[in-house]
Amino acid sequence: MDKKETVSRAALALTRQCTDEPLFVNQDMKHLPNRKVIIDMVNELRRVLFPGYYGEENITDSNPEYFIGNSLTCIYEALYQQVSAALSYKCEKFGTCHEQAEEICNTFFEKLPYIQKMLLKDVQAAFEGDPAALSHEDVIFSYPGLFAICVYRIAHELYVQKVPFIPRIMTEYAHAKTGIDINSGARIGEYFFIDHGTGVVIGETTRIGNHVKIYQGVTLGALSTRSGQQLAGVKRHPTIEDHVTIYSGSSILGGETVIGRDSVIGGNAFITESVAAGTRVTVKTPEMKFRQTKSREAALSIWE
Amino acid sequence: MDKKETVSRAALALTRQCTDEPLFVNQDMKHLPNRKVIIDMVNELRRVLFPGYYGEENITDSNPEYFIGNSLTCIYEALYQQVSAALSYKCEKFGTCHEQAEEICNTFFEKLPYIQKMLLKDVQAAFEGDPAALSHEDVIFSYPGLFAICVYRIAHELYVQKVPFIPRIMTEYAHAKTGIDINSGARIGEYFFIDHGTGVVIGETTRIGNHVKIYQGVTLGALSTRSGQQLAGVKRHPTIEDHVTIYSGSSILGGETVIGRDSVIGGNAFITESVAAGTRVTVKTPEMKFRQTKSREAALSIWE
Amino acid sequence: MDKKETVSRAALALTRQCTDEPLFVNQDMKHLPNRKVIIDMVNELRRVLFPGYYGEENITDSNPEYFIGNSLTCIYEALYQQVSAALSYKCEKFGTCHEQAEEICNTFFEKLPYIQKMLLKDVQAAFEGDPAALSHEDVIFSYPGLFAICVYRIAHELYVQKVPFIPRIMTEYAHAKTGIDINSGARIGEYFFIDHGTGVVIGETTRIGNHVKIYQGVTLGALSTRSGQQLAGVKRHPTIEDHVTIYSGSSILGGETVIGRDSVIGGNAFITESVAAGTRVTVKTPEMKFRQTKSREAALSIWE
Repeated sequence: MDKKETVSRAALALTRQCTDEPLFVNQDMKHLPNRKVIIDMVNELRRVLFPGYYGEENITDSNPEYFIGNSLTCIYEALYQQVSAALSYKCEKFGTCHEQAEEICNTFFEKLPYIQKMLLKDVQAAFEGDPAALSHEDVIFSYPGLFAICVYRIAHELYVQKVPFIPRIMTEYAHAKTGIDINSGARIGEYFFIDHGTGVVIGETTRIGNHVKIYQGVTLGALSTRSGQQLAGVKRHPTIEDHVTIYSGSSILGGETVIGRDSVIGGNAFITESVAAGTRVTVKTPEMKFRQTKSREAALSIWE
Repeated sequence: MDKKETVSRAALALTRQCTDEPLFVNQDMKHLPNRKVIIDMVNELRRVLFPGYYGEENITDSNPEYFIGNSLTCIYEALYQQVSAALSYKCEKFGTCHEQAEEICNTFFEKLPYIQKMLLKDVQAAFEGDPAALSHEDVIFSYPGLFAICVYRIAHELYVQKVPFIPRIMTEYAHAKTGIDINSGARIGEYFFIDHGTGVVIGETTRIGNHVKIYQGVTLGALSTRSGQQLAGVKRHPTIEDHVTIYSGSSILGGETVIGRDSVIGGNAFITESVAAGTRVTVKTPEMKFRQTKSREAALSIWE
Repeated sequence: MDKKETVSRAALALTRQCTDEPLFVNQDMKHLPNRKVIIDMVNELRRVLFPGYYGEENITDSNPEYFIGNSLTCIYEALYQQVSAALSYKCEKFGTCHEQAEEICNTFFEKLPYIQKMLLKDVQAAFEGDPAALSHEDVIFSYPGLFAICVYRIAHELYVQKVPFIPRIMTEYAHAKTGIDINSGARIGEYFFIDHGTGVVIGETTRIGNHVKIYQGVTLGALSTRSGQQLAGVKRHPTIEDHVTIYSGSSILGGETVIGRDSVIGGNAFITESVAAGTRVTVKTPEMKFRQTKSREAALSIWE
């Protein structure tokens, strides 16, 4: 079989499967939102919320209102198009979606100054919490925790307005960039700091108070998801009160589990029940055997 | 020393090292495959396998066969060029590689409809397994597990045809995007779901049955790799049978280790021996000390 | 409220906040370094250090000195501009920064041949240490560990010259791509290998000897960071001597902690005190309950 025939056969088979699959072709000519446009919009929002840090623009040379006004105009248009597409795809009644999209965009835009204030508090928390932070600017430029929290705070404002698809596309973009998986449904207070962050999972119905600090590999998760879609909407992730610190590798599970304020959870803890305020939890160091050998060869030869 | 001299000296030294290093310059004028072209091709393949989700194209406005046919033509050409380059670089006999590359591409293209069917089953498994999945579309747009499995299923079909370099470039691209490291040599059944996914490692000789569900931080690995290259090709990773669920942070190690069907492995397990079918493995919660304090200051002051 | 008014109000509020925030607008017309230029420069450096692997260029068709010379000229200019910007932003005395930037660039460029030699040793260590490595080329194309080490070795040479912002932007770029978080302040010997890598954290004051091998999820960290900025500059991360292997998920914490040469640390260890040379540390397998059931339904029904 030659090249041309191979391509034709594959194209024919994939076209047939595409036409048969309701997820792919839609009789009503509905359009899916555009993932790339959404991600570009998130990055443009980050540039507006931290002017001068992430883009090409140089805000110190001109009046910042030009840069900000121009960016926000573009962002509004992109958001409006994508929210309209997402709602239309979901809607039964196609006609109502444009009005609803405008309302959602307006509400979202009113939240932007608040989001920026919250993020500046998150920057402060990171600087104060990490001895390796050389400056506030370092945190804004480079900290993956701030990136993930920034995208979460944006996505959350769309989640609460029940926008389909877009919040998840945003937070999974941050997950891909940082290894930090914050579901946009979580409710998170001010001065939130995630250090290092790789492997952090924060589930959809988690509540987190103010001044909370979390390290890499922490899971705020569900006890079990075996009931799958039957659990949708149920509070199945924990509540973390103010001024709690959770060290790396710990799992805190269950919708009834509350970590009381001012608590400190040591590394590798596994907590499925509530902890009173002001508790310090430490995990007993795992039992380890130390076996002395005379050389590397010996150390390796007794290995296994 | 001035700028120009500095650059000259560095260029001279690096050119000398480049010429001396067999990995860099090749007398036979052989060409390495092009990493960027391979990654673009993977993304184009994802666009064809999930029409309408990842690209600019709008398949609902026209006949999907135009988009699919056009994409596949480009993909074939890119794949053919890259497979040829990879084989030529490896081949002793330069001449035979183009024919072999065409055979590999033809076999790969015949597999595409099968790959798409498998991926739609993976979407179904994710939707059913995760209460936070709001729709099937959500899974396709956003789930890192689906991304990693998609790239794995593509790369695997090239691995079984012994194509050098390319399968690994593909799966490490997915690893970079998702934190999920699936070696293209693994054999994985249908309805596979990885939730959250960051830190998952699935080794080269792993076998996974149907309806398997895996959470973040799970390692399906080797017991030891201290013999290095002597172990190449040996089955050193576990076998997971049908309908097994493995919760976060667990390690299952060794080529002889089999997790029998219908088993459920709790979080943070460490398993190096086989487990019979229908077994439920739970790890005893680590011993923890809970110490009550009167304030956050007190909780922190007894810390360490 | 209509679209236009919404955008105007948000723009006004954000402009006001921008003008009030010292992190955003700077009276002295100082410029921040440009993150995008820095990341492009890192990638260009990788292309020069591993000619033929990461770019479009085809070095086998022409004299490699043209490609190398041309690239280094561009890299010098970009580095010089960015180091100048970073120093100027930090400097009290604006005038001295250009000279200092040139010195820093010259010193950095003199180090490039050394960096390349070190990286070739890291490639060798990865190939020898991993049975799934099919070739040295595979390691260079695809291994995230090599990517992270490469960026670290570049960033470290700027860290030791006390360049602000840029080293951290570089290593966090690698962290985003690989899940491997190596602070540019760490001191790392030759033949260093990180396998899989997701979740690895190597703190700022860590010291690592030669021929060290580290797996995914390993933390070389601080015991506590509750004193925050007061700990800046203090050695708070461990020392790992020559020929040490550390398996996945282990944490080694504290500035006084030394892992003696030729030691092997098993998976999931938690070490806060020094370990003598030639020690093999194994963690007792966590206590697990195995409960046999007759079916998957039964296994799931006793779950929780």
